[in-house]
Amino acid sequence: MKLYYARGTCALASHIALEEAGAAYEAVPVDFAANAQRSEDYLALNPKGRVPALVTDAGVITETPAILAFIAQTHPQAGLAPLDDPFAFARLQAFNSYLCSTVHPAHAHRMRGYRWADEESSFADMRRKVPQTMADCFALIEAELLAGPWVMGEVYSVADPYLFTIAGWLEGDGVDIGRFPKVAGHYERMGERAAVRKVLAEEAA
Amino acid sequence: MKLYYARGTCALASHIALEEAGAAYEAVPVDFAANAQRSEDYLALNPKGRVPALVTDAGVITETPAILAFIAQTHPQAGLAPLDDPFAFARLQAFNSYLCSTVHPAHAHRMRGYRWADEESSFADMRRKVPQTMADCFALIEAELLAGPWVMGEVYSVADPYLFTIAGWLEGDGVDIGRFPKVAGHYERMGERAAVRKVLAEEAA
Repeated sequence: MKLYYARGTCALASHIALEEAGAAYEAVPVDFAANAQRSEDYLALNPKGRVPALVTDAGVITETPAILAFIAQTHPQAGLAPLDDPFAFARLQAFNSYLCSTVHPAHAHRMRGYRWADEESSFADMRRKVPQTMADCFALIEAELLAGPWVMGEVYSVADPYLFTIAGWLEGDGVDIGRFPKVAGHYERMGERAAVRKVLAEEAA
Repeated sequence: MKLYYARGTCALASHIALEEAGAAYEAVPVDFAANAQRSEDYLALNPKGRVPALVTDAGVITETPAILAFIAQTHPQAGLAPLDDPFAFARLQAFNSYLCSTVHPAHAHRMRGYRWADEESSFADMRRKVPQTMADCFALIEAELLAGPWVMGEVYSVADPYLFTIAGWLEGDGVDIGRFPKVAGHYERMGERAAVRKVLAEEAA
């Protein structure tokens, strides 16, 4: 498999999950600085012009929650999702859905306001609100969603690299992660994992 | 099971899926006009203050993609997802993820700009752009994602009521569904299904 990613994006979650799963994969950087995600070659692979995209023998998979569930289902020995319990699997998926549908868009209003408006004054207004919206999201995660020590409780799952990835955006979004002790503890524990260290080193290289 | 929903929201997708699955469920309207989604009772059930929320014997599930996959997994006889093929399941999930993470937020900028900004001028700017962003999303769905006759091809799945639900917002968003013949055909086919007619009648009652 090949994972197309760019540094600093949500593709980090899939990258860590592949490593944790012990998957056979190659990580391929997409040069956002050169706008390579809009190149003809890349658009042929992923018409959305975004990352992540996971190329498998069967075809291409996009969207972080879909890729994460796929990695868990195809590497059951890694135990990255409760595959035999539809309710527990749904709770895991609900967490990942919340990150992709609410938290990620909240964050995106800091740098990508042009997706939803046209005026500079709107972009500035959106940027000003990001610390509040991201703090609101993480207050909900802290109080209601993060069971601890891992997202789903005692067992590590594909939700963990996804939370780690988005929690890593808080500082740039003007939110002190220290306001959320459970999230901060989770972020620290994640940083100590061998798979996470390896992937961060590779993305930084 | 109890599905908490409000008319005109994305909860329609889960409502139709429950009906198609032949599930034993009760649909409970949440009165958005009275702001009932922010009531103490409802927040105890779903701290997000949104719909849908599916109450099961094991606990509450939120987020449309998670609920849809759960319905499919717990009603395998209904054949609403390719449960034994992780790649096909991932493609289905990628479609649902795109709707929840990109299309639904694009739509929400028409009426709920206050989620991401504070100024009236920003809300107006966002509203003006919605016809363009929604048309862009549906151009991608038309060209790349909707296999036809159903979203995933020959087999109906939980992706179909979700697409139907969001395609139903196009008119209000200032987009002529006729610009997207495959989407328009899908919308029409969906409207002819007994389960869809039954649910629409119940939500309108």
